[in-house]
Amino acid sequence: MSKFWSDIVHTLTPYVPGEQPKLKNLIKLNTNENPYPPSPKVLEALKAEAAETLRLYPDPNSDKLKSAIANYYGLQANQVFVGNGSDEILAHVFQALLKHDKPLLFPDITYSFYPVYCGLYQIQYKTVALNQQFEIDIEDYLQPNGGIILPNPNAPTGIPLPLAKIEQLFKRNPESVVVVDEAYVDFGTESAVRLIQQNPNLLVTQTLSKSRSLAGLRVGFALGHPDLIEALIRVKDSFNSYPIDRFAEAGAIAAMQDQAYFEHTCQQVVATRERLVKDMQALGFDVLPSGANFIFAKHRVKAGCELSAQLREQGIIVRQFQSPARIKEYLRITIGTEAQSQALISALTQLI
Amino acid sequence: MSKFWSDIVHTLTPYVPGEQPKLKNLIKLNTNENPYPPSPKVLEALKAEAAETLRLYPDPNSDKLKSAIANYYGLQANQVFVGNGSDEILAHVFQALLKHDKPLLFPDITYSFYPVYCGLYQIQYKTVALNQQFEIDIEDYLQPNGGIILPNPNAPTGIPLPLAKIEQLFKRNPESVVVVDEAYVDFGTESAVRLIQQNPNLLVTQTLSKSRSLAGLRVGFALGHPDLIEALIRVKDSFNSYPIDRFAEAGAIAAMQDQAYFEHTCQQVVATRERLVKDMQALGFDVLPSGANFIFAKHRVKAGCELSAQLREQGIIVRQFQSPARIKEYLRITIGTEAQSQALISALTQLI
Repeated sequence: MSKFWSDIVHTLTPYVPGEQPKLKNLIKLNTNENPYPPSPKVLEALKAEAAETLRLYPDPNSDKLKSAIANYYGLQANQVFVGNGSDEILAHVFQALLKHDKPLLFPDITYSFYPVYCGLYQIQYKTVALNQQFEIDIEDYLQPNGGIILPNPNAPTGIPLPLAKIEQLFKRNPESVVVVDEAYVDFGTESAVRLIQQNPNLLVTQTLSKSRSLAGLRVGFALGHPDLIEALIRVKDSFNSYPIDRFAEAGAIAAMQDQAYFEHTCQQVVATRERLVKDMQALGFDVLPSGANFIFAKHRVKAGCELSAQLREQGIIVRQFQSPARIKEYLRITIGTEAQSQALISALTQLI
Repeated sequence: MSKFWSDIVHTLTPYVPGEQPKLKNLIKLNTNENPYPPSPKVLEALKAEAAETLRLYPDPNSDKLKSAIANYYGLQANQVFVGNGSDEILAHVFQALLKHDKPLLFPDITYSFYPVYCGLYQIQYKTVALNQQFEIDIEDYLQPNGGIILPNPNAPTGIPLPLAKIEQLFKRNPESVVVVDEAYVDFGTESAVRLIQQNPNLLVTQTLSKSRSLAGLRVGFALGHPDLIEALIRVKDSFNSYPIDRFAEAGAIAAMQDQAYFEHTCQQVVATRERLVKDMQALGFDVLPSGANFIFAKHRVKAGCELSAQLREQGIIVRQFQSPARIKEYLRITIGTEAQSQALISALTQLI
């Protein structure tokens, strides 16, 4: 507390990211990172950036990166916005597109950064309860609103919503922007990107942190109608002219271009997930259906906090949420390599 | 314009950065980049980051970088805030520390991003005119205010304010935060950093883009009382948990640690500036006194826009501002290498 603070600072409840422990040799299954390294072509492109040219500013508009992303999805560059990780993009989205007279809607159990952004930009919002099965029911979003945002697949549940449902959501809310946060979409959930051309109120956000193994590089993007993108550009150019550094641009371009590597590693993660789900079910876990690179699972007997603490003693870190009460018994477990997955199952077998 | 935009978007007038031309072989003296490459130790540290670990998030708090900066200045890590370039830091500073009931004060001729931030965060402000010699007179800032921000040296004039004056500014405004934006301080202006320990209302911002030749890497920092830093951290953690990527952190640490290289290149820039000023004066230019890596100069006969256009035809880009009218005839010229400086003088000799 300080008299020098702007009023807003006193009211903020910042987001708390998953722990980034500084110990080595942990099996780190708590922040949904990809267990596989970035593409060798990405590393090569990055090495080339460590050069004299770093004395110069990057392209403030990241035009080459926008083109690479547009090419990948068959869009135009003016349908693409890029930022310093998808969290920065979401921050701009909340400020530029989601502050209206009616409340913003999002699920009661979802990415816990959403209410934080609402606090930062003083956006009124209303949470919509997931159903008994932790699913999003889009009928619940047919109420007056100033915008809708939801992750697909949802976090931390991992449950994917079929594209036909997403489509109803923005078709039946034509006066609102509908933001589909597809941070985890590449692990088996159907993307809404191909519906962008026909739908001016649909914005899709994605990240290179998960499916392209580049959490350490900080690049995310948004795709949508040029009018929506224009709003994001205006806010970005009133905030920071150069958010994407030379490494981030070069690495992200190489990552978007190496489709074979991307598809191969995503398939590996999905295959490991399918095996892990079966093994966990055999150990007495209820596992929610996942279209993500993590699972959300509850043991029928053992408490979530107890399991989480015991795994930690064995050097395995998973994420467990204290609130809301409905998800307290669940563990959110990132899909690791096959070996990490087997180590997890061995540890759980001992504990249960 | 779109019905989907938040109200604020309609009102924004974004900042326009200096041109980043995509042509090669230009002598680029328009965006105050350093003509010398980053330290070889920085490039080495950066190459090492192009590795498997990029799949993992960076440290959200950039603790090692904060320690490196704190060590360099003899401060504690809790007196340091880091961000994705000093523009991002300034954005957080405006939102977290400069929005109060009374107007924020800054010079009428200064970094043109300041009024843009005020627009983004709806901060009331009042500009204070520079005197006839384009100097900041601190007596003019002894009026009711909710904060003060000024660059030292000022931009685009380059004129440094003596530290004793800066000290009076925050001593005589004890109820306000005084932000000294020291983006260009390392080129011969006295820094206020050593006054931080005793003055809880002083915040200093700096960047690695200019004096450490890392415009392409996007790292800036703020130094001040832990209470001021805490406000910035709260806003940052409500905006983006991971603004500093792995390259930015590693490169910035190496840059802060290679003091000898840093001092050597700064001295070279200053020596070139001193020669350039004399040569320009001999050609009939009035040059404002500079404590920066650029000069602000007006020819006694030839118009600013004409000179700027003619230099461009010869492949030399400088910056010229259309407003306010008082500075229209001035060219802002970044200090390049000795060879670039001589090429500029040759071109000007022909033109005049």
